[in-house]
Amino acid sequence: MRFLRVGDEGSEIPALARPESTGRAYDLRPLTKDIDGAFFASGGPERAAAAAAAGELPDLDIRGMRIGAALARPHAIYAIGLNYRDHAAETGAEVPREPIVFSKAPNSLCGPHDTVVFPPGAAKGDWEAELGIVIGHRAHLLDGPESAADVIAGYVALNDISEREFQLEHGGQWLKGKSHPTFNPTGPHLVTPDEAGDPHNLRLVTRVNGKTMQDGTTADMIFRPAHIVWYLSRFLALEPGDLINTGTPAGVGMGQTPPCYLGNGDIVEVEVSGLGSLRNPVHIPAAP
Amino acid sequence: MRFLRVGDEGSEIPALARPESTGRAYDLRPLTKDIDGAFFASGGPERAAAAAAAGELPDLDIRGMRIGAALARPHAIYAIGLNYRDHAAETGAEVPREPIVFSKAPNSLCGPHDTVVFPPGAAKGDWEAELGIVIGHRAHLLDGPESAADVIAGYVALNDISEREFQLEHGGQWLKGKSHPTFNPTGPHLVTPDEAGDPHNLRLVTRVNGKTMQDGTTADMIFRPAHIVWYLSRFLALEPGDLINTGTPAGVGMGQTPPCYLGNGDIVEVEVSGLGSLRNPVHIPAAP
Repeated sequence: MRFLRVGDEGSEIPALARPESTGRAYDLRPLTKDIDGAFFASGGPERAAAAAAAGELPDLDIRGMRIGAALARPHAIYAIGLNYRDHAAETGAEVPREPIVFSKAPNSLCGPHDTVVFPPGAAKGDWEAELGIVIGHRAHLLDGPESAADVIAGYVALNDISEREFQLEHGGQWLKGKSHPTFNPTGPHLVTPDEAGDPHNLRLVTRVNGKTMQDGTTADMIFRPAHIVWYLSRFLALEPGDLINTGTPAGVGMGQTPPCYLGNGDIVEVEVSGLGSLRNPVHIPAAP
Repeated sequence: MRFLRVGDEGSEIPALARPESTGRAYDLRPLTKDIDGAFFASGGPERAAAAAAAGELPDLDIRGMRIGAALARPHAIYAIGLNYRDHAAETGAEVPREPIVFSKAPNSLCGPHDTVVFPPGAAKGDWEAELGIVIGHRAHLLDGPESAADVIAGYVALNDISEREFQLEHGGQWLKGKSHPTFNPTGPHLVTPDEAGDPHNLRLVTRVNGKTMQDGTTADMIFRPAHIVWYLSRFLALEPGDLINTGTPAGVGMGQTPPCYLGNGDIVEVEVSGLGSLRNPVHIPAAP
């Protein structure tokens, strides 16, 4: 199944995509308020499938509607740094021995076509095409990676937007350059594991103004989704609806020679095979 | 005013302390579901004051009731590292030139008397007595520190619990050692700025099994609350109800010679003058 959220920011309608039509979907409001933790933890996907099969869901014409983030604002967005060997190399970092974890503000989440807005004067805006994991059930102290499948609700495509100056040149932790509102465009669909295909064999592509900048595959991940979920559960409790950004392959702006960053008016596109594509205009207000 | 939340975890009752009685409070349920962002952003404190003055709030007998965290689970918990000169020195770090920011999982929040539970086998559990800032109104790109007072709902005492091995010995970011459930005991009261006194002159004390380990003052902060709020608003949007841990003075376990850490069954107490005190038992399950 492919879940999506359509409508204005803050009042998105939860929906189930119809395989035969891009312009129509099933309206999930009879079943749930949102595509969120409560939906997943209460068996929402199974109820949605049953209701759709039984013809119980209203039809929704989504042509012309804004597509929101594919999930509601989560309790937390965790992210894995330097999780592809080629990306670690391009940043000059060693290949990590265990996952590097950082967080992003949950209110950095936005839709797959929304404008990405930087802090005024931002000079080092960057892209990161990523596979995102959406958690379906509370995960704390899992026995091992083999238990992770039970708590993964699905996968999303996303762009882990960064401002490298704030991330790296203002002391300490990465959070500073990762958390501005609109820094996590996500969607268009949340795809259940049965439909997403092998998460270790997805192609990730980023284009900026039509030029391909990243073209990688999740086959090159250092730590795979099941390992990441188990690892996180050792020192925190993942909540239903939480989002995990799993890292990006080579080709970010910071890794170019010379480095090149996003400019005002640029268009950044991310595509993850089987999950869908994002296309976000960039807005960088002038420095005050 | 002093707000508090009483009752079982997950179903706490929002209340307003009565200055003349520790065993009774005003029940705020006629006014709000919780002590949360919606309450602050909608002028809740002013409505609570007016309703109390008018005798419109039901009386609540809180004797024997559990005290919950002084605020509902926030959208985000941000924290400032190494924000006291003496603590920076004891950890061997340089005095930061701008605030070091990290985050804690929002579900690390717990009540001021709850048991702090570590991951199994944790050997480096540590304490940090802190002043917490609670945000009352959305804060994004504030003009300067002088605008921060408008968005601060109040202050809380808290213990920024850490597991130093996860924080410092497993690569990268601090989040790993800061986010386990129960790692942020907070309360007992959320105290409005008019009643909290000068936030730059509060004494912070930590006792472990009755022995004083920290005895500092917010006068020694490097970056003050107004600066921190303004600084954060430059690269993220603070939401109503967000919590900011502002850092800790010298005397943490990691800074002792030799280092000493929390053990199973220990009692850790934190007191911040004017805000109240916390007393948390420590539970460390055996390694599996």
